[in-house]
Amino acid sequence: MSKGITSRADNYSEWYNEIVIKAGLADYSAVKGCMIIKPYGYAIWENMRDALDKMFKDTGHVNAYFPIFVPKSLFEAEEKNAEGFAKECAVVTHYRLKNDPNNKGKLMVDPAAKLEEELVVRPTSEAIIWNTYKKWVQSYRDLPILVNQWANVVRWEMRTRMFLRTTEFLWQEGHTAHATKEEAIEETEQMNEIYAKFAEEWMAVPVIQGLKSESERFAGAVETYCIEALMQDGKALQAGTSHFLGQNFSKAFDVKYLNSENKEEHVWATSWGVSTRLIGALIMAHSDDKGLVLPPKLAPYPVVIVPITKTDDGKEKVLALAKKIQQELKAKGIQVKVDDADNVRPGFKFAEYELKGVPVRVTIGERDLANNLIEIARRDTGEKETKEVDGAVDYIFDLLTEIQNNIHTKAKSFRDENIREANTWEEFEDLIASKGGFVSAHWDGTSESEEEIKAKTKATIRCIPLNNKQEDGKCILTGKNSKERVLFAKAY
Amino acid sequence: MSKGITSRADNYSEWYNEIVIKAGLADYSAVKGCMIIKPYGYAIWENMRDALDKMFKDTGHVNAYFPIFVPKSLFEAEEKNAEGFAKECAVVTHYRLKNDPNNKGKLMVDPAAKLEEELVVRPTSEAIIWNTYKKWVQSYRDLPILVNQWANVVRWEMRTRMFLRTTEFLWQEGHTAHATKEEAIEETEQMNEIYAKFAEEWMAVPVIQGLKSESERFAGAVETYCIEALMQDGKALQAGTSHFLGQNFSKAFDVKYLNSENKEEHVWATSWGVSTRLIGALIMAHSDDKGLVLPPKLAPYPVVIVPITKTDDGKEKVLALAKKIQQELKAKGIQVKVDDADNVRPGFKFAEYELKGVPVRVTIGERDLANNLIEIARRDTGEKETKEVDGAVDYIFDLLTEIQNNIHTKAKSFRDENIREANTWEEFEDLIASKGGFVSAHWDGTSESEEEIKAKTKATIRCIPLNNKQEDGKCILTGKNSKERVLFAKAY
Repeated sequence: MSKGITSRADNYSEWYNEIVIKAGLADYSAVKGCMIIKPYGYAIWENMRDALDKMFKDTGHVNAYFPIFVPKSLFEAEEKNAEGFAKECAVVTHYRLKNDPNNKGKLMVDPAAKLEEELVVRPTSEAIIWNTYKKWVQSYRDLPILVNQWANVVRWEMRTRMFLRTTEFLWQEGHTAHATKEEAIEETEQMNEIYAKFAEEWMAVPVIQGLKSESERFAGAVETYCIEALMQDGKALQAGTSHFLGQNFSKAFDVKYLNSENKEEHVWATSWGVSTRLIGALIMAHSDDKGLVLPPKLAPYPVVIVPITKTDDGKEKVLALAKKIQQELKAKGIQVKVDDADNVRPGFKFAEYELKGVPVRVTIGERDLANNLIEIARRDTGEKETKEVDGAVDYIFDLLTEIQNNIHTKAKSFRDENIREANTWEEFEDLIASKGGFVSAHWDGTSESEEEIKAKTKATIRCIPLNNKQEDGKCILTGKNSKERVLFAKAY
Repeated sequence: MSKGITSRADNYSEWYNEIVIKAGLADYSAVKGCMIIKPYGYAIWENMRDALDKMFKDTGHVNAYFPIFVPKSLFEAEEKNAEGFAKECAVVTHYRLKNDPNNKGKLMVDPAAKLEEELVVRPTSEAIIWNTYKKWVQSYRDLPILVNQWANVVRWEMRTRMFLRTTEFLWQEGHTAHATKEEAIEETEQMNEIYAKFAEEWMAVPVIQGLKSESERFAGAVETYCIEALMQDGKALQAGTSHFLGQNFSKAFDVKYLNSENKEEHVWATSWGVSTRLIGALIMAHSDDKGLVLPPKLAPYPVVIVPITKTDDGKEKVLALAKKIQQELKAKGIQVKVDDADNVRPGFKFAEYELKGVPVRVTIGERDLANNLIEIARRDTGEKETKEVDGAVDYIFDLLTEIQNNIHTKAKSFRDENIREANTWEEFEDLIASKGGFVSAHWDGTSESEEEIKAKTKATIRCIPLNNKQEDGKCILTGKNSKERVLFAKAY
């Protein structure tokens, strides 16, 4: 392992793939477009899930589980949603295999076991869920419904990238039902805010909150809120979305409630989700040419201890200290790995944990320990310090917070330096082509202009930032009047 | 809600279904055989998952995630496994829908998007996982692999029962790879032991550990260990299985390693799983004619507080105490629900929490509180006690342990009273038909006899208990020699 990886400058895309594979985050599978999330990658997802799940529960949400299959007749009920996902649906048509009479030992689909109605493997669950809410909602007393589910979904993608765009992915999808439009919009905004908070505070990834333009909206949504992050290659990445669905689904599935005046009304809806794509964002936001850089709050083990020993007596003392530090940090909620494997040289271990992005590496050497010293190395800056054993645990604990803050600050500086204004088409084209990043520019508000800009530059409208400054201007493409700037970028 | 439910004596099966629906555990879905796990049911599953996950991690296992689809060619590689599951496979044959030209607004499967190779929706993941382990294993240093995954699986069942047998269900599946046969068998036994411990200590469900007979073994296993529980209607329920897979999968997928003498050998395998079926076991083991009875350690909220107030001043005092008790129990790790809804009468709330099986109900009444008293009711026995406010938190905390133990003891007594020996065919038939429960009897060890017994009585061999007493006897069916008794029962 770890003969070095491709540098970002040489080939950013290859650098990304090598980190995913060599840091043990994921692997290719035998199924086109599907990945295997390996234990180290899955542990990051577990940490993300636990943190988000707590935020959801703290805001009154509960988890549930709905079927993975959506009967075709339900799937097509909300027309725009169906249209948006129809082209990427895995479809179950049969429920049995049988022995292939022409091919001993092989199986074939049993034509006698054809389903009367095909089942779509959920690309998203609005249809199956709103068909259920119809049963659950009668009166205003049944509202709101604040349900989330952690699940796998399938979207048949032609071009896949590990974590960023895979045919099957893991995600959470919240689906809420409300009595009023105002309450549903508040919920949509609250969940986008939670995603932003999670990205900033846990992932150390700065994000811009905004609204999607019509053409980038979720199929079936009235308004899509999003958080947009910037990767080190200057491309944007949509990291989470929260949709105000209006009454589109309640009308498609006829979900009505009796209000307090005993009048029937359609229910208002939201849905919101983040996925394993966040791991891709995490990798690309912080990592460097030596490998992964993980924020301490999401690292499977934020600290690794590597003992270096020569004598049996020394080994015993070194390991005793390692276990002691491990336990003391565990009591503070920090997972520590002690790597005492003796069939691998320390230099090899150092390279491995660097590649795996472990935030803090503690080296306990037999000789140093005789002087009551240990070495503490941080992954983000590469700095090493020799410290007294006394007080080391507190030092490491504080250092983790410092690292978390430092990589956030670094990513934020990078992001802020890469938001530029363009006031003419030439400026715009040049910025997108030469600098990348977000380009803040006026746009006339039409899908036609948006499409033409995309065709010419590959840049799309990432979002119309929330609380956007209102100012008069001219669309960079058409010169028509505009009231505000929007953020363009090439995106993942 | 809660106009009472069917009694167990009247119709056990209907009683079960009503508890599932009326206690809010699950709901029927639009997909044949698939259920919706509602928030209250899902919260039980989350508690089960967290407890099991900790036990897995404490024994060195890590989680990962493998694709939901298995290409047909991989699925058929291990012949017995394929044969065992082929008849119940959902099969994806197409990856796109398109507008139906003959039916405006409707979609149809796009015949142009037919997959070259069909994909099976995983009924279990040995095939996709062992195809991956081939890449991960080269030398003995890569072993053992101790991986678990939490996932959904699909088995096309013709007759389904909520939680007990559904087309899609949630489970965990451990898949481990070992250098030696001995180590793999140890792992298989360890995991079965963990399942038994979980059933006894968390679910309060007593189980018998044993081995399956050949015909009841997992398709592709050399040996299947299991835990078997007894439901109140005298039927057995297989609650978990742990399989020693020998080298069946490593040979089918050609997974070899170089041992320390540099010699190539096939890897040894295990797999083990428990599913949302456990919730069905939980319901049927403890509940009564008033509804669900939950063990405190798995209840979404083991304590509910119902305030009863008449005046505003009284309400303030009552709620202040309710919140205080809630916080103090939370500090001890106990979730408490305070139900201060004032559009519902206390009697209605009492009935609801009884139906939902909340272990302890605390009633704080304005009048009692003036005398510094509250009422504490336990769900398992129905007993109510009036207690001083001082010391109430400690009392409730201890009471939860007592309830957990009490329902375990009760279930164990029931189980033990329902293990009976049969020494003749007449005795056997009579016990199975009239008493149910486990019948311990000699069997000649052949699949033929086992099948005939099943055909005649509907009883199957639930297991050959571990550490089974060896004694000479005669098969109850054939009179042939036998060395040990096995446990028969009708089963879910």
